[in-house]
Amino acid sequence: MDRDIKVVKIGGNIVDNPDALARFLRDFTALEGRKILVHGGGKEATRLGARLEIPSVMIDGRRVTSRDTLDVVTMVYAGLVNKRIVSQLQAIGCNAVGLSGADGDSIRSTRRSPQPVDYGYVGDINTDGVNVSLIGSLLDAGLTPVFCAITHDGNGSLLNCNADSVASAVAIGMSAVAPVDLIYCFEQPGVMRDICCPESLIAHITAESYSALRSNGTVGQGMIPKLDNSFRAIDAGVRSVIIKHASNLNNDTGTVLSK
Amino acid sequence: MDRDIKVVKIGGNIVDNPDALARFLRDFTALEGRKILVHGGGKEATRLGARLEIPSVMIDGRRVTSRDTLDVVTMVYAGLVNKRIVSQLQAIGCNAVGLSGADGDSIRSTRRSPQPVDYGYVGDINTDGVNVSLIGSLLDAGLTPVFCAITHDGNGSLLNCNADSVASAVAIGMSAVAPVDLIYCFEQPGVMRDICCPESLIAHITAESYSALRSNGTVGQGMIPKLDNSFRAIDAGVRSVIIKHASNLNNDTGTVLSK
Repeated sequence: MDRDIKVVKIGGNIVDNPDALARFLRDFTALEGRKILVHGGGKEATRLGARLEIPSVMIDGRRVTSRDTLDVVTMVYAGLVNKRIVSQLQAIGCNAVGLSGADGDSIRSTRRSPQPVDYGYVGDINTDGVNVSLIGSLLDAGLTPVFCAITHDGNGSLLNCNADSVASAVAIGMSAVAPVDLIYCFEQPGVMRDICCPESLIAHITAESYSALRSNGTVGQGMIPKLDNSFRAIDAGVRSVIIKHASNLNNDTGTVLSK
Repeated sequence: MDRDIKVVKIGGNIVDNPDALARFLRDFTALEGRKILVHGGGKEATRLGARLEIPSVMIDGRRVTSRDTLDVVTMVYAGLVNKRIVSQLQAIGCNAVGLSGADGDSIRSTRRSPQPVDYGYVGDINTDGVNVSLIGSLLDAGLTPVFCAITHDGNGSLLNCNADSVASAVAIGMSAVAPVDLIYCFEQPGVMRDICCPESLIAHITAESYSALRSNGTVGQGMIPKLDNSFRAIDAGVRSVIIKHASNLNNDTGTVLSK
């Protein structure tokens, strides 16, 4: 039996597009072996917050999570989006089980310090916060865990996390027991020298070449958190990180990151 | 090891009251042995629907579930309420895992026929719809499943169910592999001859005495679906059904139903 584990993260832009999501879920189901899906939330939480007249405040691209906003993201990410994805996967033969980090104590985080910026109910995943044993036994039972980015602190509070960070933490955690490949799917073919030119796709980035690409501005601001997360994952034992367009999940097009 | 399973259903009135819910969850955590929680939704879905200006239509006490209402109940029941309960249980030492019926294909239902009344996205649980093997392996792993009343049809649609029916179906399903006690917790001490008089609590009802109580009007309309469900569960192999106040979970006060 193939013990490898693929951790696939799907971004909000795909989650927001029913046709793209359906196609992606078919491709995900076709992936062989043990696998885990982590999904972003898309714009639905922002839309719901607006309809409920809850102000949506962002600082440096991160949502400030008030008590009301925590309720909104819990409803949308852990409820609507997670269960839609799970029911669609079930319909096409993938035995998915949707989880927040609270479920089975699967991912534990700590509320971020209010200094220097108070992001509210936002968590950073604990170093030993991924419940490797639980996730391993779900995989052994033939289940495919589907995580949203809502976690908990173990003291009764849910906390909002970044879905890229959840994917990275899960990949790092599981790499203690199996070879893990982490695949970030989004709306671009990978990391490109020129965002307007698919031919400028960079097929391979090492830790060393990343440093140069970052300092000379080739890598755009929006990509830096994703790449930082990726190299941290590789340093922590993840076998490979691949960044690719969601429609390329089952082919080799994308950017491979390695040491 | 005690192989018995307790299936506990907690109603919406308790879910809506943070103090009562916290007390109930402590009592639930103190219950020994293998256990499963099924929770109702409370009024939060109705409130959210109203804030979103989605009409809330009820026929014979059942919510008509339009596409928009299905989204609302999925958000509130499977998201907000389920994850709040799970995170609170985790904080007090109960290793809870929150599930909709789609998760792990745990509960499968069929959309109710639109004739004679079209209830929309409402499901009736299939006779073989409870995934006994999955739930058994979660219990064996030391987990406590926490079900909301959202299920799925296996074809990609989520369906809204009645939480009493979910509890009953889970109890019947699990009774194939273990002795099961089904406990309905609500805001009354049990079944009473006079709703205003706790001393009129009926300690024991058999199938035969129920028939008489029902026909002479001693049992109020609101209790009939609960009692019908209960006797169906007993006929189908559940060892006992107990109806009691949520604050009496850990004592003997309540109404015991048996053959």
